Amino acid sequence: MEIFVSAELSNQQAARLRELTGADRLHLHNQYEEAADPDPAFTASEVAFGNVPASWLTQAPALRWIQLFSVGISDYRDLDWPALSSRITMTNLPGFFSDPVAESALAGILALYRGIDRAVLLQGRAEWQGDALRAQLRSLTGTAVVLFGYGAINRRLDELLAPYRCRVTRFRRDWTPRQLDEALAEADIVVGMAPETDATIGVFDEARLALLQKHALFVNFGRGSVVDENALAAALNRRDIGGAVIDVTQQEPLPRGHPFWTTPSTILTQHSGGGTIDEYDRIIDVFADNLTRYRDGTLLLGVVDFERGY
Amino acid sequence: MEIFVSAELSNQQAARLRELTGADRLHLHNQYEEAADPDPAFTASEVAFGNVPASWLTQAPALRWIQLFSVGISDYRDLDWPALSSRITMTNLPGFFSDPVAESALAGILALYRGIDRAVLLQGRAEWQGDALRAQLRSLTGTAVVLFGYGAINRRLDELLAPYRCRVTRFRRDWTPRQLDEALAEADIVVGMAPETDATIGVFDEARLALLQKHALFVNFGRGSVVDENALAAALNRRDIGGAVIDVTQQEPLPRGHPFWTTPSTILTQHSGGGTIDEYDRIIDVFADNLTRYRDGTLLLGVVDFERGY
Repeated sequence: MEIFVSAELSNQQAARLRELTGADRLHLHNQYEEAADPDPAFTASEVAFGNVPASWLTQAPALRWIQLFSVGISDYRDLDWPALSSRITMTNLPGFFSDPVAESALAGILALYRGIDRAVLLQGRAEWQGDALRAQLRSLTGTAVVLFGYGAINRRLDELLAPYRCRVTRFRRDWTPRQLDEALAEADIVVGMAPETDATIGVFDEARLALLQKHALFVNFGRGSVVDENALAAALNRRDIGGAVIDVTQQEPLPRGHPFWTTPSTILTQHSGGGTIDEYDRIIDVFADNLTRYRDGTLLLGVVDFERGY
Repeated sequence: MEIFVSAELSNQQAARLRELTGADRLHLHNQYEEAADPDPAFTASEVAFGNVPASWLTQAPALRWIQLFSVGISDYRDLDWPALSSRITMTNLPGFFSDPVAESALAGILALYRGIDRAVLLQGRAEWQGDALRAQLRSLTGTAVVLFGYGAINRRLDELLAPYRCRVTRFRRDWTPRQLDEALAEADIVVGMAPETDATIGVFDEARLALLQKHALFVNFGRGSVVDENALAAALNRRDIGGAVIDVTQQEPLPRGHPFWTTPSTILTQHSGGGTIDEYDRIIDVFADNLTRYRDGTLLLGVVDFERGY
């Protein structure tokens, strides 16, 4: 069996993959640009590990299974899955990032509530503000939180929020615009953690953002496409809302000159939310488990359902 | 009855105090320097509200009750309480700051674990690091946490930590050096939240800090005197420990040139930990409650026990 891996791995991680794949033929390559032609080794492989360019999947006659490094699948949404899925199984990493992403979202919220962002900047100029800083802070305890999307990450965030006795309103797939609008108008904090689907793109448009209270925080760790970025930046610049914590944006890296670099009370976590120092080791754990299952012909974990959209 | 208030209050807060004190004679003053002579209005007052200079309490023949704005009482520790306490009751604010301080401590910890400090600095130069930032991050879930001191604040922090399934070791008043040393050697995070007493001053000396793991965080929201600041700064500069979150220091404001301004992976929250935008309104709530109790001759809430030390 030929196995294609597209990733930047340490020598130790590569050695571990070699051991895992044993007698199989392992092709280890770095990551590719979206426009690249398929690597010949990929075209010949039955198994792939890593987020290869989407166009490659239509030119891979031998491919049976691809394990992604991500939970997001939006790069692959536009392929002809009704046809492809009879031949290729795609697995992603559902739940894999829920601990770190939920922690990053809460870290950003608590940073804005407790002035960590301002403290970091003051420290750079050795400036003591003390009581002036102190008088701007808020307590998370007892706040009203809207969780938009209720997959593994927001369920984990919900657990992390439990001790704060927040009034949490949860939006799963069955929400109505009226329910969302009503919840937004009363929210202290709104957390977008939804996959990119036809039902989530552009949900937080100018009109919805205008419903938010003056002190409300908008937090987005799902997909950048859920929000109208220009409307959000304008609301922040006018101080119509209290702040934002933004992990995902429509363009990444965020281009120079994008308004989010300079909007006030904004924390940009640069799509780092899912990261941990042992992230790739843990992803290899998942691949190793699924590789055993693949060889045994048993059910793979994390199979993507393109009809559902994630 | 004469009531002396030493605080910088808004007009609205002053009006509220006037209403509360009714027919009593209210003296409203700003805050005083430590070296100041007693204000004549203070000398004549039966009730005081605010942290007046400690020396004043020995020159206040009419004073029966003083309500502090703080939970800390270290400014008043050196007075002759065996003699004073027969005449003066001091009340502080036990538990009052537990929500905001515990949230600030966790905000600092999560900021270092999830890279919020680095993200804020990158944003200032519009620099995208993305994956490089991501690979440095840690998850709080499953970490080993030492709580040194187990008053209201660390009990609240313990509640906030519950969803992270940490291994928490709690040090109340009955700890032994050996127990502490063993816990420090295995800790990912150490949180000092102890009052200043003879038993807590200098506990975290150079030898104890040297027990910490290379990635360990040292967090101090209790009193600055619990730690040898030079030893902590040296450990941070040598990267012998992973980082620090420091709310309290031996000198405040922190002097220019103090090493904490420039030690790496350090978040200085500038004694803002207890703050909220409604802090003074909530303190007036406490005073109003105790003033009713004082007039009724019933037990005041938050009476300081100087023999116990807090």
